[in-house]
Amino acid sequence: MSQSRTQRTVPDSRCVMSELVLPNDTNGLGNLMGGRLLHWMDVCAAITSQRHAGMVCVTASVDSVEFHSPILQSDIVVLESQVNRAFRTSMEIEINVYAENPRMDDARRHCNRAYFTFVAVGPDGKPVVVPELVPASPEETDRFDAALRRREFRLLLSGRMKPSEAVHVQDYLASFSQD
Amino acid sequence: MSQSRTQRTVPDSRCVMSELVLPNDTNGLGNLMGGRLLHWMDVCAAITSQRHAGMVCVTASVDSVEFHSPILQSDIVVLESQVNRAFRTSMEIEINVYAENPRMDDARRHCNRAYFTFVAVGPDGKPVVVPELVPASPEETDRFDAALRRREFRLLLSGRMKPSEAVHVQDYLASFSQD
Amino acid sequence: MSQSRTQRTVPDSRCVMSELVLPNDTNGLGNLMGGRLLHWMDVCAAITSQRHAGMVCVTASVDSVEFHSPILQSDIVVLESQVNRAFRTSMEIEINVYAENPRMDDARRHCNRAYFTFVAVGPDGKPVVVPELVPASPEETDRFDAALRRREFRLLLSGRMKPSEAVHVQDYLASFSQD
Amino acid sequence: MSQSRTQRTVPDSRCVMSELVLPNDTNGLGNLMGGRLLHWMDVCAAITSQRHAGMVCVTASVDSVEFHSPILQSDIVVLESQVNRAFRTSMEIEINVYAENPRMDDARRHCNRAYFTFVAVGPDGKPVVVPELVPASPEETDRFDAALRRREFRLLLSGRMKPSEAVHVQDYLASFSQD
Amino acid sequence: MSQSRTQRTVPDSRCVMSELVLPNDTNGLGNLMGGRLLHWMDVCAAITSQRHAGMVCVTASVDSVEFHSPILQSDIVVLESQVNRAFRTSMEIEINVYAENPRMDDARRHCNRAYFTFVAVGPDGKPVVVPELVPASPEETDRFDAALRRREFRLLLSGRMKPSEAVHVQDYLASFSQD
Amino acid sequence: MSQSRTQRTVPDSRCVMSELVLPNDTNGLGNLMGGRLLHWMDVCAAITSQRHAGMVCVTASVDSVEFHSPILQSDIVVLESQVNRAFRTSMEIEINVYAENPRMDDARRHCNRAYFTFVAVGPDGKPVVVPELVPASPEETDRFDAALRRREFRLLLSGRMKPSEAVHVQDYLASFSQD
Repeated sequence: MSQSRTQRTVPDSRCVMSELVLPNDTNGLGNLMGGRLLHWMDVCAAITSQRHAGMVCVTASVDSVEFHSPILQSDIVVLESQVNRAFRTSMEIEINVYAENPRMDDARRHCNRAYFTFVAVGPDGKPVVVPELVPASPEETDRFDAALRRREFRLLLSGRMKPSEAVHVQDYLASFSQD
Repeated sequence: MSQSRTQRTVPDSRCVMSELVLPNDTNGLGNLMGGRLLHWMDVCAAITSQRHAGMVCVTASVDSVEFHSPILQSDIVVLESQVNRAFRTSMEIEINVYAENPRMDDARRHCNRAYFTFVAVGPDGKPVVVPELVPASPEETDRFDAALRRREFRLLLSGRMKPSEAVHVQDYLASFSQD
Repeated sequence: MSQSRTQRTVPDSRCVMSELVLPNDTNGLGNLMGGRLLHWMDVCAAITSQRHAGMVCVTASVDSVEFHSPILQSDIVVLESQVNRAFRTSMEIEINVYAENPRMDDARRHCNRAYFTFVAVGPDGKPVVVPELVPASPEETDRFDAALRRREFRLLLSGRMKPSEAVHVQDYLASFSQD
Repeated sequence: MSQSRTQRTVPDSRCVMSELVLPNDTNGLGNLMGGRLLHWMDVCAAITSQRHAGMVCVTASVDSVEFHSPILQSDIVVLESQVNRAFRTSMEIEINVYAENPRMDDARRHCNRAYFTFVAVGPDGKPVVVPELVPASPEETDRFDAALRRREFRLLLSGRMKPSEAVHVQDYLASFSQD
Repeated sequence: MSQSRTQRTVPDSRCVMSELVLPNDTNGLGNLMGGRLLHWMDVCAAITSQRHAGMVCVTASVDSVEFHSPILQSDIVVLESQVNRAFRTSMEIEINVYAENPRMDDARRHCNRAYFTFVAVGPDGKPVVVPELVPASPEETDRFDAALRRREFRLLLSGRMKPSEAVHVQDYLASFSQD
Repeated sequence: MSQSRTQRTVPDSRCVMSELVLPNDTNGLGNLMGGRLLHWMDVCAAITSQRHAGMVCVTASVDSVEFHSPILQSDIVVLESQVNRAFRTSMEIEINVYAENPRMDDARRHCNRAYFTFVAVGPDGKPVVVPELVPASPEETDRFDAALRRREFRLLLSGRMKPSEAVHVQDYLASFSQD
């Protein structure tokens, strides 16, 4: 199923998680608490990153996440994660969250899309080089390209990259001024 | 994706769950405890049965389950459930359990196959008629047929069917005597 | 209280567990989920098997279990487990489950009877010989005898014993044909 | 088994709980945390008080508890609770805690003895009169008598009884001066 | 302590949480999982937002979060949250996370700073107007001003504000080009 | 912030914990169970004792605790702990518990005051000498003095001190007889 350990594909590490929203996961109005969902997203992304890297991986950053669609007690929550791009020792993981209430109808709502960055670490806790991700479809290639732009954005926001070096973000900013 | 609410297909209600084995899930030797795995199987089967029936479903019985392959702390456990056959108010759900340790290799071990029976219940707690399952492939048809034989077996074992009525089990017993 | 470590009695390892059904243990109708009960049964049986064997024991199999009597939130669940028979490295554990709602009446309902098989394992994960069980009453002897028949049945179902070798099951099947 | 609902015996409401000490129950040295044990004691006592009173009961007070004997991860903890005496709307519950490590030996250590007071409450949250406890053995009578003395002590310590009214505690103090 | 319900101060709703990192909170290397920390952050911020608004509040968004400093099992984690600014029905909550290992030294490490946005909701699930936040110190005023800029940034990123309207972000971008 | 490791102040080890009361923390009437609160108190006190001692500390005893004020589901519970006095290898920790419902009003109710004794233990499980506590205000000095009286009381109650040696308790008893 997988390629050599230096190159891996998106399906090699995709992960699907299903959870039932129980009473302790909700606030006083019966809505799933945002923090519980973030926790599930992190576990789902951790599984994908470990499958890609073949070693323990730790959360390095979470991009901004929005919560538009309330999820209710007894709903089924489905999380799907995949690697968008591998950098040297880190990977961008995309997580999509869906909710459904089979007792009401068949509608499956898309609730969240989030990007987590994980770093592979060795037994000594030091970062380790991870396999390359090889995109295989136009959609995978689009995500592969967008991941690089988001990475520059993260480095810029955290002050680890100079604006002048952020080539892809400059293009992004340029598209603003044409608005 | 689904058919009318009186007929449904296998993919309509299939469920995939992924879990990380944490310290509290293990015994003194670091093995996943059987009871924790049974709990996960039941949640996975409950989601599938609710998707098929479109209402709350409760566990009616669990067929015998064997635990051959030990699962260890930090392993990833993947559970996959599907409806094999719907009877009047009950459904046979098949659950397959796989384990993998991405830090060792890519091998995904098949650990368990189990059959749970769920009953759909209304708000008054009474059983409710569920949609028919329509098998669509030879493999789904084989499971559909085998589910009827296992049901007779369950009714026989629990004393709710006379041996003389258990037509499919009689065929099964006959195959023994030819051994 | 116990005999020598090579022979043990039923009371030596009997276990009683009491649990309160909390919100997270229930489904959308306020019923105890089957998987939570299976988890408790497994812990109760694990304690009994460890007391009998004097070492870590792991779940090897669960016989079919039926769930007839719904158990509700805030009910008290009592589980009682005991060894029915010890084989070479395995033991059959019987678990009986009772439920009561002291706020309604004194009635204690018998909800389930199940048979779990546990295997004693050493620090290397290999099976280890366990003490013999010495039945001491007619009731304990009946269970001791029935355990052997159930074991043959398990081996037969899992394909590890030929039907021609299953002497006790043949007697059981013979009693069917006289129906 | 029970008497009328205005009089009940000690065995009517006795409760036995068994728990396995899991990693999350322990501190950095692998010892069971005191707070987890207090939590289990409270659940065990709550079951006994509900059985005696036939309604929801809430913790009113806990007498001082000492922790002498460390309990370790993977140990089996057994809690036994019983009513010592019923007052008007409250009951004194005695809880005894034992620990054992079946992998080492058969020794069952007595670890704690504690006294919890519970009050029966109606649906409006107001205290409700509970059945009388009828002691039936010399040992039960001793506990019945001692419970009255401990109650005076509690009322005295919390400033709800004047020392001059605490007849049984005065006797207790007198026994000190003869030391 | 608080002002009228239409105006509130920062100290009125500040929250401090302390947590012990237990085995189930960690990954295979003994590090606190990012998702568990995000969950704690969300609970801490939820308490602050409820104190400010006087009603149930739900997570609307989480700004990007970075995890630089690994937190280990048995460490003490301290979270401190406060309202930076109230908008019409939403509030920006800042959460600072510290970790310490008292068994090593007294050093308390600053691990994370995050911004969560919460919305106050009524019993019907609709957003409700919240009290104004009145900053009272230069530091509180700085945070009050920065919160407006971050809000424009969020609206811009999620496509709910046109770049030409994002006055504060334009200033921010301008400061880039002078780099 | 702290003094040398042989002398420490009260603020050096003070701990604040905030908890939301979730469904699984409550009994059938929606009240926080006493045992859950005792568990939180123990964790809060454990953090304070570890900060004071700089090593793992275990619960040695809990003084009597009363529960007067019911705490409800969705309430916020705040626990504050501090060292009152250090003895040779043990410390008296005072814990105050407050509850609030921000959806009702701003009132913060004082619910409980409790005294836990912790002992510092080394890697071999043996008690270890802890730093002295240096009271710095009249209030801290009052608590420092009262802690000595309570300790004599504990030793007396547990039979580890003769009444004739309990100088401070004798004074306390004398104040009774003047009532």
